[in-house]
Amino acid sequence: MNANDITRARTAAATQLEAAGIVLTDHERATIEVADFGLSDFDRQGLALVVYANTDRYCGKELVLSAGQTCPEHRHPPVPLPEGRVDPGKMETFRCRRGTVYLYVEGTATPKRHGKPPVHSESYYTVFHEIELKPGAQYTIPPNTLHWFQAGPDGAVVTEFSSTSRDELDHFTDPRITRVPDPA
Amino acid sequence: MNANDITRARTAAATQLEAAGIVLTDHERATIEVADFGLSDFDRQGLALVVYANTDRYCGKELVLSAGQTCPEHRHPPVPLPEGRVDPGKMETFRCRRGTVYLYVEGTATPKRHGKPPVHSESYYTVFHEIELKPGAQYTIPPNTLHWFQAGPDGAVVTEFSSTSRDELDHFTDPRITRVPDPA
Repeated sequence: MNANDITRARTAAATQLEAAGIVLTDHERATIEVADFGLSDFDRQGLALVVYANTDRYCGKELVLSAGQTCPEHRHPPVPLPEGRVDPGKMETFRCRRGTVYLYVEGTATPKRHGKPPVHSESYYTVFHEIELKPGAQYTIPPNTLHWFQAGPDGAVVTEFSSTSRDELDHFTDPRITRVPDPA
Repeated sequence: MNANDITRARTAAATQLEAAGIVLTDHERATIEVADFGLSDFDRQGLALVVYANTDRYCGKELVLSAGQTCPEHRHPPVPLPEGRVDPGKMETFRCRRGTVYLYVEGTATPKRHGKPPVHSESYYTVFHEIELKPGAQYTIPPNTLHWFQAGPDGAVVTEFSSTSRDELDHFTDPRITRVPDPA
C-alpha cells in the first residue's frame, strides 16, 4: 500500500470508530495500524487496528473492518516462553461494538452462511461454522483455533480482549500471507 | 443495598453506558454488578461493572461511576497459582470512554488535586498521585500498586483491559471493606 492508500484506510477506520462512540487521541488516529497481510488487496482482505495495550499478560485492541472486508483465516499457535512454560496460543474475546461481523471458526459448517471467502482466495478458507456478532454480542475464540471474519454491509468495529498478542507468529492458511505491520 | 437500590444503580449505569455508545444485551443490563464494598454508602463509595470475560489469562470489563462516586483504595496482591507459579497481581489498563475519571496511584502527591477522599473515610486513602483520564486517555496500573479513583461531575465510563480478575483477593486500605459481589 502506498502512503495515500494508508491515509485513506486510516481515515475510513477513524470515521467508523467515531460512529461507534470510540474516542481516539490525535496520535492514535494518525497511527492506526493498517494491515493488508501482504496481499495488496486491502479493500477485500485487510483490517485496521488500534492497539491500546499489549503486555506480557494481556492485550486490548479495536478492530475495524470496512463493508464486506475480510480478515483472512489464521490461528494463534502455542508459543514457548523464555521461562520454560508454553503459552497455549492467543485466546481472544471479540465484543462487537458497531455494524455486523460474521466470524467463522472450526466446527460444523453452517449451511446458509452470510459471508463468503474472497473470490480467487477460496482455497485458503477452510472453516465455516458461522457466528453472527452484532453490537452487544461477543464470542471467545480458543487458542490455536482456525478463524476468519468478515464485516457486513455497514462495516464493523470490534473490541478485542485477549491474552498477549504476537502477530508475527500467527499462522495463516494462505501461504502468500506475511503478517508484518505496515511500516508507515 | 436493598433490591430497589440495586435496580436504581443498574438503571443509572445502563443509562451512562448507552450515552457512551456501549451496547449491552438485555441480560447484561439486568445483571450489572453493583458493588458497595460492604460500606452501605453506594452513592459515594461504589462502582457498577459489566464483566465481559474473565478467563485464566485475561479479563475485560466496563466500569461505571456516577458523578463524584469513588472506588475505594486497594491493590491487587500477588497470588500463588496451583501450578506453582506466582501471579504478580492483577495488572490493568484503564481506557476512559466517557466523562472524567481521576485516578490516584502511588508516587509523588499531586499538589492541586481534583478529587477528594470521601468525608469520614479520609484515613483510608493514602496515595495521591493524580492521573486525569478523559475519553481517549488511558493508564496502566502495575500489579500490587495502591490505587483509587473518582468520577468527575458527569460520571465516567472506563473500559478495563487486564490480567485475570480475582476480586475476592483484593486488598483494601479500609479494613471495613469486604469485596463480595452483591448477591442480587
